[in-house]
Amino acid sequence: MTINVLFAARPDRWDDYEAPLSAALADAGLDAHLATDLPPGEVDYIVYSPSGPVSDFRPFTRAKAVLNLWAGVETIIGNPTLTQPLCRMVDEGLTLGMAEWVAGHALRHHLGTDLDVRRAPGDWSPHIPPLAPERPVTVLGLGALGQAAARMLANIGFPVTGWSRTQKDIAGIRCLSGADGLDRALSNAQILVLLLPDTPATANILDARTLALLPRGAVILNPGRGTLIDDDALLLALDTGQVGHATLDVFRQEPLPGEHPYWHHPRVTVTPHIAAETRPRTASLTIAENIRRSEAGEPLLHLVDRKHGY
Amino acid sequence: MTINVLFAARPDRWDDYEAPLSAALADAGLDAHLATDLPPGEVDYIVYSPSGPVSDFRPFTRAKAVLNLWAGVETIIGNPTLTQPLCRMVDEGLTLGMAEWVAGHALRHHLGTDLDVRRAPGDWSPHIPPLAPERPVTVLGLGALGQAAARMLANIGFPVTGWSRTQKDIAGIRCLSGADGLDRALSNAQILVLLLPDTPATANILDARTLALLPRGAVILNPGRGTLIDDDALLLALDTGQVGHATLDVFRQEPLPGEHPYWHHPRVTVTPHIAAETRPRTASLTIAENIRRSEAGEPLLHLVDRKHGY
Repeated sequence: MTINVLFAARPDRWDDYEAPLSAALADAGLDAHLATDLPPGEVDYIVYSPSGPVSDFRPFTRAKAVLNLWAGVETIIGNPTLTQPLCRMVDEGLTLGMAEWVAGHALRHHLGTDLDVRRAPGDWSPHIPPLAPERPVTVLGLGALGQAAARMLANIGFPVTGWSRTQKDIAGIRCLSGADGLDRALSNAQILVLLLPDTPATANILDARTLALLPRGAVILNPGRGTLIDDDALLLALDTGQVGHATLDVFRQEPLPGEHPYWHHPRVTVTPHIAAETRPRTASLTIAENIRRSEAGEPLLHLVDRKHGY
Repeated sequence: MTINVLFAARPDRWDDYEAPLSAALADAGLDAHLATDLPPGEVDYIVYSPSGPVSDFRPFTRAKAVLNLWAGVETIIGNPTLTQPLCRMVDEGLTLGMAEWVAGHALRHHLGTDLDVRRAPGDWSPHIPPLAPERPVTVLGLGALGQAAARMLANIGFPVTGWSRTQKDIAGIRCLSGADGLDRALSNAQILVLLLPDTPATANILDARTLALLPRGAVILNPGRGTLIDDDALLLALDTGQVGHATLDVFRQEPLPGEHPYWHHPRVTVTPHIAAETRPRTASLTIAENIRRSEAGEPLLHLVDRKHGY
């Protein structure tokens, strides 16, 4: 029997997804009908993004799963109409792109390349950075994205500490957990990478108290979630030099309004939510694999744990 | 008998080297007298840099080796007074620093982070780069520095081609050699890294002909030697967009004069010869090990082949 798959992401993404998703479904051996418009009562799977047209899941009485195109689920997790299993996107392309964004900006700050990009003609003054093994980096969050970023940083030679809610064990990474572990993870973080999910427990995890635990002049990279940072506390820490620089990709309000102080602070670099870009080809493979699993009675991948909110 | 070691680098480096070099010599079990001023006829080993005080090696009648603090030897190789064995510096710290410089600037261009560093307040326009596996990188030169850079680039995920005079075999790197191999190595190099030695055979290896072989918009990183590039040809290729950007660390004349077009070209980033910085602690280990080897009758490490000039 044909499986009806509703593509309920932003309509302008249909052009990017129709071909790779159709191909991935066929390659998974599924007889699927993929469309942007289907009678709700006939839909078997919903390919979803928060920027798409669906907000009331009650009419989708037959839907077996909601397959999110985004890694984050904070805008859907509290939706009381959602009773179907919800899967996060774990896209190999997104994961790789995230690790590259983190590695690139970590090396940018480590080497001080902004000095070169902005170097005045004739300015031959050298700046010799320490070596990466002398530059401790901490990654908060050791999910798929945090682990990929931590591994790439370790491959480059940085000594990497990772922190997560539950204790992890990852080769080549010093893994810490819990409240005491957080303080220890921050205490030597010359570069701090935020890759935690957005949950009540992680809101403002970087606040006046935790910012003060960092070594003076630490650099913050936030490709995770805007809610992880107490913005006023960070701006103050930037003013005093406690934080040397912040490169921020995510914000409480996006696009970040033009008058926001982050745009105008000399110690802040804003990137427009580009670190976690889903790549259609690889994301389609994840979606097709989950539909195949569901149809075969196998457990879904990347199923959201409603209790913890991710 | 005490071994007399003359420190003949730039005098202002003595402060950086006295302690680590003394410690390294002692740790190697050598009874060494290290000084910046010794009667030439009593010197056993010369720790040398081209910016130091020695240019006539004839008075050093007893010297068993000249131990260069620099990786490059082009400014000493043609010195007719030099009859002693000459060793290049292969410094683990320098090698690592070079790989980091190459990886950092490769990721800078790959991700387009200059756009973010220079982003105007309120500009939320995204730029999504390809993934590193979709960005071929070529490294010309597979000596210690080229291999370290190639390995780090491959670890990050770039498909790496390496080219050298003699054929090499390095895991994870597509190795090419010879004239035909050079043309093939250039033909898909979206990022090209120059890490060849300065020899008659490598002078102007990047000229109008070879620049034209690159894919349009290719990025050039030159942390190797200034003589590798035909500067006029590169400036023309930058003007036409055949070369998208050049980040250059080495030049025919250093410091690069303030009026040089490289300082003023919007597609050029100048760094002040910082990619190959010798680190005193690790360089001292290399020097001490070579003196130990020489005294024990073992072959010297990193001995310069006078015929090939490196």
